[in-house]
Parts: sequence; C-alpha cells; structure tokens
Amino acid sequence: MKILNGQRLVFIGDSVTDMGRTRNGDAPSEGLFEPLGKGYPHVVSGLLNAFYPERLIRITNVGNSGNTVRALKERWQRDVIDLKPDWLSIMIGINDVWRQFDVPQLSDRPVFPDEYRETLRDLVVQTKPLLAGGLVLMTPYFIEPNRSDLMRARMDEYGAICKEIAKETGVIFVDTQAEFDKILKYRYSGYITWDRVHPNIYGATVLARAFLKAVDFDFNHEI
Amino acid sequence: MKILNGQRLVFIGDSVTDMGRTRNGDAPSEGLFEPLGKGYPHVVSGLLNAFYPERLIRITNVGNSGNTVRALKERWQRDVIDLKPDWLSIMIGINDVWRQFDVPQLSDRPVFPDEYRETLRDLVVQTKPLLAGGLVLMTPYFIEPNRSDLMRARMDEYGAICKEIAKETGVIFVDTQAEFDKILKYRYSGYITWDRVHPNIYGATVLARAFLKAVDFDFNHEI
Amino acid sequence: MKILNGQRLVFIGDSVTDMGRTRNGDAPSEGLFEPLGKGYPHVVSGLLNAFYPERLIRITNVGNSGNTVRALKERWQRDVIDLKPDWLSIMIGINDVWRQFDVPQLSDRPVFPDEYRETLRDLVVQTKPLLAGGLVLMTPYFIEPNRSDLMRARMDEYGAICKEIAKETGVIFVDTQAEFDKILKYRYSGYITWDRVHPNIYGATVLARAFLKAVDFDFNHEI
Amino acid sequence: MKILNGQRLVFIGDSVTDMGRTRNGDAPSEGLFEPLGKGYPHVVSGLLNAFYPERLIRITNVGNSGNTVRALKERWQRDVIDLKPDWLSIMIGINDVWRQFDVPQLSDRPVFPDEYRETLRDLVVQTKPLLAGGLVLMTPYFIEPNRSDLMRARMDEYGAICKEIAKETGVIFVDTQAEFDKILKYRYSGYITWDRVHPNIYGATVLARAFLKAVDFDFNHEI
Amino acid sequence: MKILNGQRLVFIGDSVTDMGRTRNGDAPSEGLFEPLGKGYPHVVSGLLNAFYPERLIRITNVGNSGNTVRALKERWQRDVIDLKPDWLSIMIGINDVWRQFDVPQLSDRPVFPDEYRETLRDLVVQTKPLLAGGLVLMTPYFIEPNRSDLMRARMDEYGAICKEIAKETGVIFVDTQAEFDKILKYRYSGYITWDRVHPNIYGATVLARAFLKAVDFDFNHEI
Amino acid sequence: MKILNGQRLVFIGDSVTDMGRTRNGDAPSEGLFEPLGKGYPHVVSGLLNAFYPERLIRITNVGNSGNTVRALKERWQRDVIDLKPDWLSIMIGINDVWRQFDVPQLSDRPVFPDEYRETLRDLVVQTKPLLAGGLVLMTPYFIEPNRSDLMRARMDEYGAICKEIAKETGVIFVDTQAEFDKILKYRYSGYITWDRVHPNIYGATVLARAFLKAVDFDFNHEI
Amino acid sequence: MKILNGQRLVFIGDSVTDMGRTRNGDAPSEGLFEPLGKGYPHVVSGLLNAFYPERLIRITNVGNSGNTVRALKERWQRDVIDLKPDWLSIMIGINDVWRQFDVPQLSDRPVFPDEYRETLRDLVVQTKPLLAGGLVLMTPYFIEPNRSDLMRARMDEYGAICKEIAKETGVIFVDTQAEFDKILKYRYSGYITWDRVHPNIYGATVLARAFLKAVDFDFNHEI
Amino acid sequence: MKILNGQRLVFIGDSVTDMGRTRNGDAPSEGLFEPLGKGYPHVVSGLLNAFYPERLIRITNVGNSGNTVRALKERWQRDVIDLKPDWLSIMIGINDVWRQFDVPQLSDRPVFPDEYRETLRDLVVQTKPLLAGGLVLMTPYFIEPNRSDLMRARMDEYGAICKEIAKETGVIFVDTQAEFDKILKYRYSGYITWDRVHPNIYGATVLARAFLKAVDFDFNHEI
Repeated sequence: MKILNGQRLVFIGDSVTDMGRTRNGDAPSEGLFEPLGKGYPHVVSGLLNAFYPERLIRITNVGNSGNTVRALKERWQRDVIDLKPDWLSIMIGINDVWRQFDVPQLSDRPVFPDEYRETLRDLVVQTKPLLAGGLVLMTPYFIEPNRSDLMRARMDEYGAICKEIAKETGVIFVDTQAEFDKILKYRYSGYITWDRVHPNIYGATVLARAFLKAVDFDFNHEI
Repeated sequence: MKILNGQRLVFIGDSVTDMGRTRNGDAPSEGLFEPLGKGYPHVVSGLLNAFYPERLIRITNVGNSGNTVRALKERWQRDVIDLKPDWLSIMIGINDVWRQFDVPQLSDRPVFPDEYRETLRDLVVQTKPLLAGGLVLMTPYFIEPNRSDLMRARMDEYGAICKEIAKETGVIFVDTQAEFDKILKYRYSGYITWDRVHPNIYGATVLARAFLKAVDFDFNHEI
Repeated sequence: MKILNGQRLVFIGDSVTDMGRTRNGDAPSEGLFEPLGKGYPHVVSGLLNAFYPERLIRITNVGNSGNTVRALKERWQRDVIDLKPDWLSIMIGINDVWRQFDVPQLSDRPVFPDEYRETLRDLVVQTKPLLAGGLVLMTPYFIEPNRSDLMRARMDEYGAICKEIAKETGVIFVDTQAEFDKILKYRYSGYITWDRVHPNIYGATVLARAFLKAVDFDFNHEI
Repeated sequence: MKILNGQRLVFIGDSVTDMGRTRNGDAPSEGLFEPLGKGYPHVVSGLLNAFYPERLIRITNVGNSGNTVRALKERWQRDVIDLKPDWLSIMIGINDVWRQFDVPQLSDRPVFPDEYRETLRDLVVQTKPLLAGGLVLMTPYFIEPNRSDLMRARMDEYGAICKEIAKETGVIFVDTQAEFDKILKYRYSGYITWDRVHPNIYGATVLARAFLKAVDFDFNHEI
Repeated sequence: MKILNGQRLVFIGDSVTDMGRTRNGDAPSEGLFEPLGKGYPHVVSGLLNAFYPERLIRITNVGNSGNTVRALKERWQRDVIDLKPDWLSIMIGINDVWRQFDVPQLSDRPVFPDEYRETLRDLVVQTKPLLAGGLVLMTPYFIEPNRSDLMRARMDEYGAICKEIAKETGVIFVDTQAEFDKILKYRYSGYITWDRVHPNIYGATVLARAFLKAVDFDFNHEI
Repeated sequence: MKILNGQRLVFIGDSVTDMGRTRNGDAPSEGLFEPLGKGYPHVVSGLLNAFYPERLIRITNVGNSGNTVRALKERWQRDVIDLKPDWLSIMIGINDVWRQFDVPQLSDRPVFPDEYRETLRDLVVQTKPLLAGGLVLMTPYFIEPNRSDLMRARMDEYGAICKEIAKETGVIFVDTQAEFDKILKYRYSGYITWDRVHPNIYGATVLARAFLKAVDFDFNHEI
Repeated sequence: MKILNGQRLVFIGDSVTDMGRTRNGDAPSEGLFEPLGKGYPHVVSGLLNAFYPERLIRITNVGNSGNTVRALKERWQRDVIDLKPDWLSIMIGINDVWRQFDVPQLSDRPVFPDEYRETLRDLVVQTKPLLAGGLVLMTPYFIEPNRSDLMRARMDEYGAICKEIAKETGVIFVDTQAEFDKILKYRYSGYITWDRVHPNIYGATVLARAFLKAVDFDFNHEI
Repeated sequence: MKILNGQRLVFIGDSVTDMGRTRNGDAPSEGLFEPLGKGYPHVVSGLLNAFYPERLIRITNVGNSGNTVRALKERWQRDVIDLKPDWLSIMIGINDVWRQFDVPQLSDRPVFPDEYRETLRDLVVQTKPLLAGGLVLMTPYFIEPNRSDLMRARMDEYGAICKEIAKETGVIFVDTQAEFDKILKYRYSGYITWDRVHPNIYGATVLARAFLKAVDFDFNHEI
C-alpha cells in the first residue's frame, strides 16, 4: 500500500467530501471525535486503520459544501499548501456542472470546461512536486446511468478533463463514475442517493474502495 | 459469501450495535435514510452493498443501548422471531459485565455468568432452527490489552461462554476480542474508543470485518 | 368554472400534496394561518381566491407524506367520506412506485400495479356518487424526461392506470406527467425539484394550473 | 410579455416584499431552495416559470422588513444599482405611513409625504435609465375599505404620490390598492390579512397578478 | 370595593382573557410565578393587591384562546362551577363574531346571535345564584372606531345582547367597547393593538380599569 | 399631571427597571411590541395611556440588570444625555448594597456609601438642568420589614442618601421603601417577591403608583 | 460510622433534596451519571465514597420539588417502602410552611401543624421497624437569622415538631436550622441562598455535614 | 488552616479543573450562581465555606478544557498574574500525555517531558514570589491501577516531574495519583470515571480532600 507510516493524507473537494465534517472555524477536520464527516474520507479512515493498524496515517478533511474548482483555488494556500500533505486527494467538479442545470439564471455560479481544466491543471501542477507521497485525482460523477442525460453527459466531459490532466501530469487517476456505473447495473440510483449526487453509506463505500484501490490498498493484508 | 440474494440479516445487541440507530417507536431500523446508526451494522451495510451489489440483502438493526442478555430475552419474540430473519447476528454481554464494575451497589443490574450462559444458550438454541441462513455469535469485548485488568478478565469469561455455546450449538463464532487485541499491539485503546467499549469508525470497521470474514465475504469479489 | 360558491374542495395524496401542511392531531388542514402547506393546494387556494373572490370555497388538505394508495384506503372514511366534500382531488402513486426502487429489499412497502388499480378504482367508484361537484384524478409523475428510465417507465404505467380508471368511471383526469414534460423541454429537472419528485414553487404552480384548467378555471375572469 | 429571456428582475420593498426571504448576510435572495420568501415575489416566480418556461428570468428579492423609503435610499447602491437589474419593481410606503399611527410618539420613525415624494422620485429618476427592461412602481396599500379611515386616507395620499411620480417619469404603475379594493367588495379584510397589511397567499396572489398584468403577462400563453 | 377579603374571583373568556396564562394541564391559572398571562386579569391582580393589600383575594384565570360561548359552555362545569368562585367575570363573543369574517367558508366555526344570546343567558342564569359576590358581564369589543365597519357593527350587536342579558338578570355590566371608543378619539387602533382585538398593556389597562370601576374600586383608597 | 403631551420620559436603573426589556443592541427600549419589560415602567406606560390618552408621552426604558450607580455613570452620556429626555426617573442602589452581602469576597463589586452619594449627586446635578420636565429620584428598597436586618439597614442608608440628594438638588423624591413597608403590614415578602428584591406584578404596581403620585397623576382624571 | 457496607440509603424530601435529580419516569434516582441532583445527597455521596471507599453504599434520591408531608404520604409506598432501604433520611416541611406565606389565598396548599405532626409521625412510626439501619429525621429550616421573622418563627414550630417526633420514636434527629444559624453568624443569607431556602454548594455542604455527623461519620477515618 | 481570611485562591488547570465552569467571555469564574463548575474547585468551595465560615476566601476557577502546560503559559499573564492571587493551585499534564495516545498522528498536540518540565518550572518559579499565601502543585493522574499501562506509566513520569519541581522550588505538593490509587484498591475505575480521567463527584471529592489536606484544613474545626 502506497501510503506510508507517518504520512499525512488530505482530502479536498465539495459536499461529497465534506459530508458534515466537524468544523471549528477555518481549521481542517482531523483528530478526536470522528470529525471527518460521514462520507468517503470517514470510510477510508476506518478501513486504513482497521487493515493497516501498523501504519499511523494523519487523515485530514478540508472538503467544503458547494465548492467548485474556482472556490478550491481561492483557499488552496490555506487548505492544501499550508497543511504540507504527503498525499492529496482531489474530487471536484460536481457543482461546476450542477449550477449549469439547477440555477441556469445565475450565470456566474457554474464553472465552464475551459476554466475548469485550466484551474484544476494549475492546482495539480503546482502541488504535485510538493507531495512526498502522491496526488490522487478523482473524477466528479453523476449517479445516473443514462449517458444521454444532459447533466450526466456534461459530467462525463468534466471527468474526461480529469483523465486528461491526470495523464498529462502523471498523477493517480480514479474514475468514480465508472465505479458507480457498475452499481447502477444492479440498482436504481435512488438506492444509494436521493439526488443522484450525495451518496449514502453504500455510495461512500464505493468511493472509498475506489480511492484505496488506487493507492494499492490490499484487503487481504494481514496484521 | 454465505449471505444470499434476497435474505434478511438482523443485528441484535447493546449500544455497540445500536450506535444511535434511527428510532420510530418500537419498529426495527432499516430502509431509507441510513437508519442503522454509525456502528458496525452501518459499516457492514456499506461493504455488502459496495462489494456485492448483485445481492439484495435486507439489513435490520435492533440493537438497544444498555441491554444485557436478560433484556434481549424480554424482547426476543418481537425483535427477532417476529422479524423472520434468515441471518441473525448477536453481540451481547458488555453491560452484563460492566454493571458489576460501575454500579456494584445496584446488585440487580449486572447479569452474572450462570444466567448469561443459560439465557444466551436458550436464545441461540430456540432461534437457530428458524434461520434459513445462519446465526453469528459475536463475543463481547473490552478494548484493554491487560488481561489481568479486572473487567477484561471478567469479559474474557463471558467471551469463553460465547465460544462454548457456539461450539455446542454449531453456530458461527466471532472472537471480537481477538480482533481488537491485534489493533492494541499498535495503538493505545484511546485511539479507537474513549471508554474502552464504544468504538469509533476504526473500531466499527474492525467489528464489521470480523463479522464479514465469518460469513466468507470476499474483498476481492469482482462485480 | 366548475367549483361553485359554497362548495368544499378536498385534496388527498402523498407528500406532494401534504408539503408541510399544518397539523393539529388528525384534523384536516384548512382555515386560518395558511395551513395548506406550500404545495399545489396552497397555490390553488391563492389563485381561486384572487381570481374568483365572489365564490367562497372551502379548501381542505389531507395529504400525508409517504402515503401509498394502500395508506389512503385505511384513512378514507375519516379523511374523505366524513368530510363530505363536494369536490375531491386525488393524486397518489409516487410512493407506490418509488419504494420499488429505493428500498427494494423491503418488499412489503411498495404497492404493485394490480393492488394499485383495484384499490384506487374502488375508492373512486365508492366516492364519486357522494360528490355534488366532481372528482379530479391526477396522475402520479416523475420529473425525468427519459421515458426509458426505469422509474419513469414504471410511473407511466401507474399514470396509465389512472387514465384508464378515469375513463371507466367518468371522473375528471389530469395528466400531471404531461405537464411536467412540457417544462422539461426547456429546463433540466433540477431546476424544479431536487429529487425528481418534490417540486419547488415552479412545479407546484404547474400542478395547480393543471388542476385548475381541469375544472375550467378562467384566468381572464373579471371580478 | 415584456420581461425577456435572460433578463434579471429585482423586487425591492418592505416586509410585504420580504415575507421571510432566506437571508445569507447581506446577499440578495435568489437561486436554490426557494429563497424568495412567501410573498408576491415567490408567487410571481412560480407563475413566470410555469407559464413561460421558455424564458429564463433571474428573480431577486431584496425586500427588507420595516423599511421606509428612507431606508431604501441608504441601501440603494448595494441592493439595486450594484445588482444591475433589467427590471426593477418597487413597493414602498406602508411603514412610512404606519409609524405615524402606531408609534406617533417616535416622531423620527415615519417618513412624511414631502420626504417620501422627493426620495422616491430621486430613486426612480436615477435608476430608470439604467434598466434595459423597465421599472414597475407599485403603490403601498391598506386592506381597509373605509376610505375615511385615517390610515387608509393617509395611505391613499402616498399612493397618489406614486401615481404622480409614475406619470412624471413614465414608469409602469401598479395600483395595488385598487386591486385589494376589488376583493374587499366580497370579503372582510380579515380573510386575507390579520393586520390589514401582511397578506396571506390570497393577497400575495392578488399582488402577483397585478404585477404580472402590468408587464403584459398572458395567462393564456401556450408553452 | 365590592370584592371582599377572602373571596375568589374567576375570569373566563377567550384569548383576550387568556393572554398566555401559564398552563399546567387543565388546571386553572392562579398562585405562584405570575401565571395570569399578560392581559387585563394580570393588571387587575396588580391593582387589587397594590391598592387593597388588606384584602386577600384569590384571582383565577381560566380564559382560553379561540373560545366562543359554545366552547365556554362545554367546560363550564369544570372551569367555573367546580371552582366555586365568589365573583365571576365573563368576556366572550369576539371569536363568535370574528369567525364570520375570517373563515366564512368554515360555517360551523362562528356562533350566530341566537345561539350566542341563549347560551350566554343560560350560563349567567345558572351561575348567578351560586355566587356569594357577583357576576360581571363584559361585552366583546372591536378596536375600530368606524361603526359602519362590518365587523364592528356585528360586534355591537353582540355587545347589545350582553347589555340585554345583564339587564334581564341583574348582573354587573361592563361596556368595554365604550371604553375603547374613548381612547380611539385620541389614538389610531394600531397604537394599542395590531389586529384590532388583542390589546397591548395600554388596552389591557383600559379593560382592567373598566372591570375595577364596575366593582367600585377606589383609586383613592388609602392603605 | 406634570408630564405633558409630547414629552419624553426615560427610566434608568437596575434589573428592577430592566425586568426583561426587549433589547436590540445598545438601543433604548421603546415603541412597538411592548418592549419595556414587565416591571414598573411597563405598568406606568399602561396607566399613563389608559388614564391620559390625550397626552402622547414617549416612554423609554434603559434599565440594565446588575447595574450599580458606577455602571450608570459609565453609560450616562449614551443612555441619558443623548436621548434628550424631558423627564428622567432614576432608581439605583440595590446592587450597590447587595454585592456587599452576597459576594463579600469580591470587594470591588459593591459601591459603598461615599462613592454612591458622590456619583449619584453628580449625575443628578449635571442632568437636572437639561430636563424640560423634571427628575424623579426613587430610592432603592429591600422588601423586608425588619429594619435590623443587615441588608435592610444598609439599604435604608442608601435610601437616606437619595432623600438627602433630592433635598439638596430639589428633584422629586419617591420613597419606594415606605411604599413596600405599607404592603408588608399585610403580607409576607414572599407574596410579592421571591428574593426580597424583584417584585411580581403586585410590587411593580406599587412602584408604578408611587412614581405616578410623585408626578401628580390623577386616577380620577376623566378622558 | 453507622452506615454499613452493603446497605441502602434513601433520601426523601422536597426541592432541597431533589435539587434537579435526574429523572427517568417514576424511577428513583441512583447509579450511573451522577443522578442525585446537586444538593446535599450529592455531596453526601461524594464524601461517603471518598472517605469510606471500603464500604459500598447504595444511595438513592427520591426528593420531589414542591412536596409537603401530605405529598410524601401519597407516594410513601412506592418511593420508600418498596425500595426496602436500610437507612432513610427525611427532610420535609419547608413547603408546608412556605405556602402559608407566598400563596395565602390558596388555602388548601399549605399543611398546618396538626396535619404535619400527625402525618409525619405516622410515616416515621410505620417505617422505622422496617429499617435495618436507621431513620434520620432532619428539620425543615429557613435561612433567616431573625427568629421573629414570621416565616422563620413558623418554621421553628415545625422544627420543634420534628424534634418531638424524633424523641418519641427514638429516631436520629438533625437540627438543620441550628447548623445554618451558625453560618449566619458570619454571613448574610444571600451568601448561601437566593431565596432563604435553596442552598448553593456552601449550604448543601452544611446539610451534608450535619447528616453525616448524625451517623457518626469520621472525617479522620483513614482508608 | 493555611488559607487566611480575605485571601484569594485561584485554581488553574485543564478540563478536570474546568468541569463546566460558567463562562462570561474571558473573565475568570467566581462569585454568584455557583460558577465554579462541578469539579474539585466546586467541592473545595463548599467545604471551605461550611467548615470555616469565619474566613472569607475568594475562590476563582480559570481551568480550561483541553489545556496543556503550553496553553497555560500562553494565558498565564491574564489568567494568573493579573488576578493577583494569594494562593495558586495548578494541576496540569493530563492532556500533555493523553494526546500522545489518542491522536499520535497529530504530533504537535502533545507536550513531551522536556517541554513540560521546563515550562511548568518557569511558571512556578516566576509566580511563587508573587503569592502572599502559597502555591499548590497537584500532579496529573490516570485512574488506572496498572502501573505498566502505557498511559499510566507515562503519566507517572509527569507526576514525578511535578514532584521534582515542587521539591526544587519549595511549593506545596499534592500527589493526586496516590489518592486515586487508594480508592482503586476497593473500586474499579469505572465507578468514579467513564474515561479514567474525568471524575464524578466521588473523584472530585477525593481531589478536593487532597488539596485541603495540603493546606492543613481541619475537618474537626469547630465554628
């Protein structure tokens, strides 16, 4: 497993990452009293500690509900660089797309593909060299099996941009959409989310597994 | 994996099972809005659905905070038999022991070994034949590595009774104490629990894994 | 306009009808302090009173969140017959379908087509003769334009049953799905609902207009 | 209908406009989660979207409870000019009058006719040229049919000032008092308001209709 | 002053009497912690105790918000007869009238003049002989100076019925409307009430004074 | 009655004056929604308006719980001078004394006689000339009949200082202690206060009457 | 010390005993989570456990706020006899007296001396033989040094009745008034109570010490 | 007893000292309404006042939950020096140790022995000369009898540092661990604490007694 004893892992993203993390002013969420929210960072923390107790890993959640990549950029110094992570996981883009569909009248709220690509690429490029471990870039997703659905199709464009950036920059890529698509072969979206975005524990575990596989987590690892 | 598509799995126990499950009168917790609490049944539901989406399993939590085996007995008909489970998981005994130590002056609150053994055996014996799947008997535990600690030693007695009953009755046995002991080689108890009983997400995942291994869950299972 | 001065109009249905109506025990919602919730019955009450102030119409909301047609049947005597309405509007079926998709493991929660048809037809048949005004049967709907979507397709089946019952019994029929389909030509579902079911004020107004047109409401009516 | 696809419509006024709009610091209310309150701007948003879905109109509510025209003036730059509306709707004056009657001992609270006229005219004159669409000036009102009532009589003076300003400046004029007077022929004031000022949904719909008629909204418009 | 040392005075009525009296199940409000609400019974209790401290008078408030005379009748045994008052003060009728105007569609809510007269007279006739002190009958009122106002005119009819009953039965009569009319010569209704019914402390004091004058309270009484 | 139409009356003091007055930042309490608390300023406002409706008097409460005369001094400019009262009523001293008895270990909390006299005299002397109406100086009090009680005896010293200052400066003097002493001839202190300081409505009315008599209020005044 | 290892000690009384004990329906307060309130039973539990840890004593609080001896009698079977205490401590009478002074108009609320004596004696006589340990009868008290104070004088009468009953029946007597009188030589009542009845921690410790001395508690006892 | 009439005693420490003390901004907790929390400073205040009422001692609690000695240092000027205590009691170190065990991944949270020794010694050395009374240094503790327990062993190191500092500087030393060890001979830790750190009233009394003995408190002192 790639994340080593003593390393720090930071998760940044939107409400899917945030998922009600415990807040104390602007401080990142970590440490006592299970402050990581109830999403995939929380599930990841459970699996890392249960399967690799011999490795002490500092897990920090700085996801913020409603964030687009533009919002990430604004707080990147404080919430990423200053924390000096060894590993960084980014999942962003859902709100960049969603705002194009739910408040199309507020034209400054979404982030369109060019800005998305450029901003995200800049963040990845500037940060990768600072990481002793690595950078995991997770795609945004839409828990909707119909690829012709307007919002799914748009989300796929953003996912493709992530893939392209990951390829260019050599960071680890996680295709979260592909993972949900597997589940959608068996279940209707409503089984794991009420709005096709925010996953329940089933979906959070799907995301956690995808993340962990990307860092070579071994579920057969013996303590 | 032993739990089959279409089967119902019921978890019964004390606060470690309950862990804030959503209540609606006396109804069991299951279905919409993640009602299983935040303990191991919740983690189990995430893993079962993420790894085996092709199997639809009805997961029900009827754990009640503060329960001893005596309290389980009183509600067994309503909360186990009437639910017609295919699989039943029982984890009980922590309060049976704890009350001997934290309120020794209330002598009717604990359940001592003879009553514990007899009651638990009766429940297992009467229920096993009704289960199309199987019965998993999980030991109580105390997240304390010192086997001479009075409460740990007492808890080990109850764990041994569970093992003995499992052997006699041929049900599946899970040694939760052994699982926590592995973690305690690397971390102090305070890392996973504030009172040596109630686990955080790390400990809940330890319990979930122990349960799942006992039913031959395969983490390498491909969807 | 068909609803006459002095008549009573009762709305029954599920959460789309309920929409937070003010409750006082089991009493129906009507009268002082805008108790009709914030859904289409509320919008209807505004339009009826603003456009036809010369007609005094008693509007009563007895929608209950989570109801299926099976639940309506159980409370029909108290919540419909005993109220002696002149006009009755029914919109039911969303939960009958939804539970097939979001909690498929709870197999007794949905209402399948045969039971739906039979129960709804019985309620319509027994009630129509008691109404001095008329009965409006509104279809359930799913705010999803893709007719191949599993839940949309299923909902269309239930809509067709409504249409069939309306035809058989001669009651007024409202095709709510068709109304939403018109909006979906211009807007993504997320613009009017976060879960493709519960409409915001835009959707509530769409439903209100559909209802009012069915009773020959004239928006050009002069006071 | 005069309001065009892509335009922004801003409502400013007092508590009748505010009606509990969702607040987030000093930001205007618009967008997700039905933030427009429960008054006429909310009803207008429902009708515009249900009848003209092909036009995407950005609707913003900046009404503030308790405001007089003097208070509007103080926040005009931030809450009107800076928002760059295409359409602006103003309804102000109720508190300017009311404070003369309910707290006559606080002599600096009301705004008397000269200041009202001058301030309102200035705001209209400076803003009209900035609007690509138009400006709608709605009178204040008092839901009291007796024109000799002291407060009704005073309110009529302020309504006349609005009319005069509208005429002078060529903006669209809405006589809300005349609309309520039509309703009062059939119903006592208590049917639509508990204090002769704050309307329930019936009254909010009356105001919404009056506004919409003024901008040539066509209720027979086909989608 | 007619109310003597050691006597019990009970106030019954609607929300004007209730005014938020402290409730403890169905028990009448009296005794510790100022439980009489903030209306005229509260003001009366202050004046009686401040001006006549040598008389110990038990003051009990059993006013209930929303009550009509029909509602009084239903609870008369428990809330009047069983309390064995020496003095009884009744003020009822506002809701009997109001419901004719604010919810005319709910035709069973108001109490019309014939029922009002008959019910009130019965209550007075049956109770007067049981009172060692006396019975004070206070008229309902409407804080509106225009006698042609529909609700004021209607309220005057009910006030006249009170006067007629008082004359027939020889009980003490208080014309509350006349008292408010005096204030309305100087102030607009909004100065003492937000809905022309519920008085603030100014109006509560007007009612208290009217009650006290009727029982020969002497403000010049020396302690 | 000395307080004339159009004048402003300000009450300043401690918790007996404050009595839960409605706060809005540092603004004084006056105007809509009965903001004067539930103490004697509230009762005074009721009596002034009920008995002298032809006089419009602006009544303002700036009492602050816990204040001593030292605290009054600190806020005198903002809470007295800047308000430009015509009439000022001061009742201060209870906390100056009380802190000597309930927290004798916090030696800087009380205000001892010399500082009390000097500070209060200064405030009176500097303010009197600014008042078009007059200044009413009310003594502190202790609702305890035993003059040998240590706290009563101490309070009497402070009352004497008030009297002395009133005499020196020619302001209106109100001996509140004497008023309560009259009541204490008939009732135990617990009948009007739970701590011998904070009066219930009976005591608030005693204080209100004492204040009003001092300004020649005529309870026989006819409207 | 008279209370032996393994014995049960029950405290019954009014609000001074209750002091916010944790309630769970009608169950007595004992065991986990410090349920004894914050009064003298709580302090006693701390001292017994800190000084005599070798003795395990079950301490139960069944004090109820507002109780008189009449109220104790009504619940004696459930709250004393059924609990089978070894030791019983009773402190009652404060409300029996207080109600004579704070609500003299509610003549059925106090318990006068004859009923007090008879009821209390009956309870003591019937219970003493059932106690393996003993019965401690604590007087009511009033934290007021002036013996001529009406309520103090009355309380002394009730204290004398307690003393008389203790003598007659041979139970252990605690003169709580005498203990408080010692403190009152040095401090004003307000230092330990805001209403001369409910003690703060200083007063609770005074009561606890008095109780413990009566059962021969030795503060010099070595563990 | 060493603490004299008129002296001020300040308690500083972590959550064991804080124990929910009443906060008012940054002000220290002292005076009215029992603001000292529910821990040993509260118990000390009860015992000092009950046994030595002739001495008036100002007791102030400035304990802050979560504090380490590093945190004490940062607020030492404001919370100790500026208060000018005569007596200072310090108990610190539990969090310095605990963070090494419960959040080992957050390596900057604990305070290791060298920093602990140096910081604490500096604080003691600089403060001792300023105290007219004396300085009491209480050890941190862990309510766990097994001296091989990792956290107990570590805590013992910190306790030894305290002892060493006390010896060097000549301040009064309290070995709290030794006191709890005596109790642990008879009871399991769970009887007095749920997490081996925060004591219930039994443990708070143990700490209070240890403190008081160190200042020669005489439980046989006669008032």
